[in-house]
Amino acid sequence: MPEMMKALRKTFPGAGAELKEIAIPRVDKGLVLVKVEIAAICGSDQAVYRWSKNIAVNTELPFTMGHEYCGTVVEVGDGVQNFMVGDRVVGETHVPCGKCYMCRGGNQHLCVNMRNIGKTYQGCFAEYILVPESCLIKIDQTVDPRVGAIMEPLGVAVHALQKTSPCGGTLAVLGCGPIGLMTINASKQMGAHTVFSTSRSPAKLKMAEKMGADYQINSGQEDVIDAIKALTNGGGVDVVIEASGSNEAFLEGLEILKNQGRFCLLGIPTAPIQFDADRYLIRKELNITGIWGRKMYSTWLLVEQFIASGKLDLDPLLGSTYELEDYASAFEKAASGTVQRIFLNPV
Amino acid sequence: MPEMMKALRKTFPGAGAELKEIAIPRVDKGLVLVKVEIAAICGSDQAVYRWSKNIAVNTELPFTMGHEYCGTVVEVGDGVQNFMVGDRVVGETHVPCGKCYMCRGGNQHLCVNMRNIGKTYQGCFAEYILVPESCLIKIDQTVDPRVGAIMEPLGVAVHALQKTSPCGGTLAVLGCGPIGLMTINASKQMGAHTVFSTSRSPAKLKMAEKMGADYQINSGQEDVIDAIKALTNGGGVDVVIEASGSNEAFLEGLEILKNQGRFCLLGIPTAPIQFDADRYLIRKELNITGIWGRKMYSTWLLVEQFIASGKLDLDPLLGSTYELEDYASAFEKAASGTVQRIFLNPV
Amino acid sequence: MPEMMKALRKTFPGAGAELKEIAIPRVDKGLVLVKVEIAAICGSDQAVYRWSKNIAVNTELPFTMGHEYCGTVVEVGDGVQNFMVGDRVVGETHVPCGKCYMCRGGNQHLCVNMRNIGKTYQGCFAEYILVPESCLIKIDQTVDPRVGAIMEPLGVAVHALQKTSPCGGTLAVLGCGPIGLMTINASKQMGAHTVFSTSRSPAKLKMAEKMGADYQINSGQEDVIDAIKALTNGGGVDVVIEASGSNEAFLEGLEILKNQGRFCLLGIPTAPIQFDADRYLIRKELNITGIWGRKMYSTWLLVEQFIASGKLDLDPLLGSTYELEDYASAFEKAASGTVQRIFLNPV
Amino acid sequence: MPEMMKALRKTFPGAGAELKEIAIPRVDKGLVLVKVEIAAICGSDQAVYRWSKNIAVNTELPFTMGHEYCGTVVEVGDGVQNFMVGDRVVGETHVPCGKCYMCRGGNQHLCVNMRNIGKTYQGCFAEYILVPESCLIKIDQTVDPRVGAIMEPLGVAVHALQKTSPCGGTLAVLGCGPIGLMTINASKQMGAHTVFSTSRSPAKLKMAEKMGADYQINSGQEDVIDAIKALTNGGGVDVVIEASGSNEAFLEGLEILKNQGRFCLLGIPTAPIQFDADRYLIRKELNITGIWGRKMYSTWLLVEQFIASGKLDLDPLLGSTYELEDYASAFEKAASGTVQRIFLNPV
Repeated sequence: MPEMMKALRKTFPGAGAELKEIAIPRVDKGLVLVKVEIAAICGSDQAVYRWSKNIAVNTELPFTMGHEYCGTVVEVGDGVQNFMVGDRVVGETHVPCGKCYMCRGGNQHLCVNMRNIGKTYQGCFAEYILVPESCLIKIDQTVDPRVGAIMEPLGVAVHALQKTSPCGGTLAVLGCGPIGLMTINASKQMGAHTVFSTSRSPAKLKMAEKMGADYQINSGQEDVIDAIKALTNGGGVDVVIEASGSNEAFLEGLEILKNQGRFCLLGIPTAPIQFDADRYLIRKELNITGIWGRKMYSTWLLVEQFIASGKLDLDPLLGSTYELEDYASAFEKAASGTVQRIFLNPV
Repeated sequence: MPEMMKALRKTFPGAGAELKEIAIPRVDKGLVLVKVEIAAICGSDQAVYRWSKNIAVNTELPFTMGHEYCGTVVEVGDGVQNFMVGDRVVGETHVPCGKCYMCRGGNQHLCVNMRNIGKTYQGCFAEYILVPESCLIKIDQTVDPRVGAIMEPLGVAVHALQKTSPCGGTLAVLGCGPIGLMTINASKQMGAHTVFSTSRSPAKLKMAEKMGADYQINSGQEDVIDAIKALTNGGGVDVVIEASGSNEAFLEGLEILKNQGRFCLLGIPTAPIQFDADRYLIRKELNITGIWGRKMYSTWLLVEQFIASGKLDLDPLLGSTYELEDYASAFEKAASGTVQRIFLNPV
Repeated sequence: MPEMMKALRKTFPGAGAELKEIAIPRVDKGLVLVKVEIAAICGSDQAVYRWSKNIAVNTELPFTMGHEYCGTVVEVGDGVQNFMVGDRVVGETHVPCGKCYMCRGGNQHLCVNMRNIGKTYQGCFAEYILVPESCLIKIDQTVDPRVGAIMEPLGVAVHALQKTSPCGGTLAVLGCGPIGLMTINASKQMGAHTVFSTSRSPAKLKMAEKMGADYQINSGQEDVIDAIKALTNGGGVDVVIEASGSNEAFLEGLEILKNQGRFCLLGIPTAPIQFDADRYLIRKELNITGIWGRKMYSTWLLVEQFIASGKLDLDPLLGSTYELEDYASAFEKAASGTVQRIFLNPV
Repeated sequence: MPEMMKALRKTFPGAGAELKEIAIPRVDKGLVLVKVEIAAICGSDQAVYRWSKNIAVNTELPFTMGHEYCGTVVEVGDGVQNFMVGDRVVGETHVPCGKCYMCRGGNQHLCVNMRNIGKTYQGCFAEYILVPESCLIKIDQTVDPRVGAIMEPLGVAVHALQKTSPCGGTLAVLGCGPIGLMTINASKQMGAHTVFSTSRSPAKLKMAEKMGADYQINSGQEDVIDAIKALTNGGGVDVVIEASGSNEAFLEGLEILKNQGRFCLLGIPTAPIQFDADRYLIRKELNITGIWGRKMYSTWLLVEQFIASGKLDLDPLLGSTYELEDYASAFEKAASGTVQRIFLNPV
């Protein structure tokens, strides 16, 4: 076992990161050391990389970036009960405290003392990552490591669908980034009868179609509200999953919902949202909520099932893999508007 | 049976109303004529009276005002099945179409072709009111007519509690107008463990205490967020019912909720609401909704039960009764910040 | 318009029925006269035809049999609001009172004063049927009349799925009669991830496969519990829909469910059910319920959507059509163990 | 710290137990040693003591009996995170594995590899008990130790109410053993509008009244079904909690429920239950479930709140305390039909 490893570190406040040689962390009570096979770049990694305003809060430099990965257990600490050397694993991003009322009530993903891997906890853009066993999920040796690495964001999509339960109903997914596209794909397996997708990008809408969307609406060219009302005989949809984070899409979502419809925010807005609460909360009795990560672990149980059965069609979302050294190109590619997940190979 | 009756009519766009002598309407298929014993003045009647901006839309002048009442059936039209002359009744405000997907799905209170008594349908500030039988609820002859007349707004309070199901949890009611106060009172019967109330008015807070609130917070003098966090060991509450309509209270409500808490808007905001959707929908996974009127008729079934059992304590909310001729004084009194319902006697 | 029509009448207590010439009923307030295009034979029609024990209770002879049909409106009574001559319609079997607490609470399908078409209300095995407008559903002129006629039993299947919400989970459908098969087919559109089907009939299991079942288990040859536990790594399923009515299948269903699983009874048992309540209700916390008909009208809204979109595959379930005169052969065929719906043509 | 302690041990298959001197267990990783202040005798302890048929399965002799207790932490093992010496604690009976799909899904109380304190895990009828930290709940130093010891069975009552959510509805509690009585008491705080209680014992019915039941029905003298239907105008109740375990009460519960009512089994039946599934599951669409222990930890959060607020009235349920040596008298008293909890003092 070597002593040092490469790691992509956020070492300074500002755009960029540094590839560093650092000591491989050592296991301790309850902790597991994982050799990283592959990692994926998420939108929130971009935010860290580019040091956007809301990231700068509550993070302490330096730290190793990254939180989506697939790897193999190489060492387990005292008291670890569920994993052993050789296990193939993927990672949950959130490190809950296990003590607060959220954790005790089975909502560890909303722990009030949460630490986040790749932000307030050392991340996976490195040769090894050391995590509590509660943040690992076992997967089969046969799973493509890139698919393994995106099970975490797939969990975000599945969580949004668990919360809105489209079972037989109509669904609009606003925005077609990777998680929006996974939402479309998973929704067809979770009972959405008709799926409407919106985006300003023809390439993303084409991918939405491939993922199973029944209708694609170019929000740069068409009025989304008019289009979806026309396609639903004026009735609107049962469920909206907002995956873009824009105030405009938020308002479109509220307008296209049927009375008592279910709205779930998945895209992270960067500015306050303004809306007509009388029209949407009172007169339509809409149900507005959002999701944060995945349920630990009821979402994971579904994600594991989807990966095991092969019923999803995630291959079109798998983009290029870059060496960890080429992180700058990888981040550039990931920010280029590609609809695919971009990967980093730390070996 | 006389031919003419007194009615308080909105005859012109602008503040005020006119007391007129008009023909008593005649029953027709499915319609029931009710002699009004007493009527109550709601906040939305004030809006009509003062002709506030959002009222002026979609109303056609002239019309008879008023929608909260108690009376006795004096004539029934062909095909009326459930009522007969002499029945004591109170009124549901909403006249649903019975054909749209909301009506067919058991959500007549959100009918997409709704007509509203006292606004787009002739109201009850008159000696007689003519309504479809679907808008009447039978009550016992022994019920105080003023209590009968406020069963409709009580239904608003009960509906908000049905939707948020406080069963064993902590509840904050923000704002102590008459419906906020009824919410407090009903919540203690519907399982709220601890009830926090807020208002700027010491008189209203005193009434909140009488209605059963465990804590009263003067929002003009104390920081509501600090106060409620302190009283809950920093944890916050399970349910917020916002009964004031102000953006400030909306934000306070979001902040004092526990993660995954339930927020129900009951107070009607007059301006767009602005809030941090990342903080409240994503990171806290709050559930935000609102209510419009009452469920027809599952809310009424509960309201009828509460009135029959006498377990609520509504007497302190019963204010003065004015002759219909003295409507101007009655509207003035109702707008004076009183915590009580003001009544009109049309006889 | 003729005065007389053919009708298949239950005129005596005992097996069989009589084809009679009777007066065509005349419209009255709220009633609609429908010319029947085609009708289908349900299991409960068989029970009436063969006069099984539990049918004999609460029915008054004579009456016209049949309750699944598709037809065209030919006359409407006073006060009918939603239908006009020429409308293509299918029928809801239950005639609710509209006044009881179930009707008022939006659960007309559980009306405590229910009348049943083809049993306690004149049925559709006739050239014409007269029903309240609340028992008609409009459909498109292009729908195959046989498909129209089976929208009512399809509603039973959809209702069971609405109640158990398989959204992403595993489902076992026990028994493969026509409604069991429709349940399988609809479940794949309503989010069931993996569907297990059981039957003693190889022909029915073959049809189950055609309808989308992932696994077919011959309950005459294999131990259902062992088989499903083996196929789920010992874990069992999330949802069971019992469509056979047998006590044995009831117990199998309880045993193959995961802890906290959802069990819905759809097949009508003819004898009391015995089960180990400690094992299944206490130690597994199973949720056991059943369904009666369809929600009026939230189930119909889904059924209409499925028929309009063509996403179901019901054609394999459409069996032969017999002239009304040949009713004896039709009932014989329907009782022969066929997996298909058998139709009667009244013209 | 002494080395030996007194413990009430089940050492042989058959009625009775033995008071033994055994070694005080020593802490290990994740384990906490608690000095027992007081313990309570539950019905399931009686079953162990008297060695009833269903207990003899899956237990390995010898073991220390008892699972309801209140005590103080005296030693903590490595890795214990949430407790320290001096903490006042009460105990959760179930020791979940933490690895199965139930545990991972937040339903540790239904762990498929469960061990039970006082049966398959060393119990609390001793001077000390050694448990995983996950089985301890912190309480205030001011709580009466007897109240602390019955928080565990109170959790059973609260869990049944959480599952059936009486919020504004009518509730029947069938059977008035200690947990039935706690259910009555807690239900008034969790929103039950009207509570009906049944028992054959006048003493228990008197206690039911003290606990808040609105009506007491002597099931030995009156027909429970007739009585409750009469008291509800023939309508029946919204929720039934069956706390007796008898088939007769099970059937009464199904019959007195409204259509779509909610039935929760809390009393453990000792024989198979037989019922008319057509009548109750199909035609009434009842929802039948049961509960096992308490949710870990969402039920505990409510129980802690109720104890902290003092809003329950549990004092009448606190019976005599016996020295551990006098266990035989204590078990005799507990089996005598007393409505109170009987306690053991191990010091």
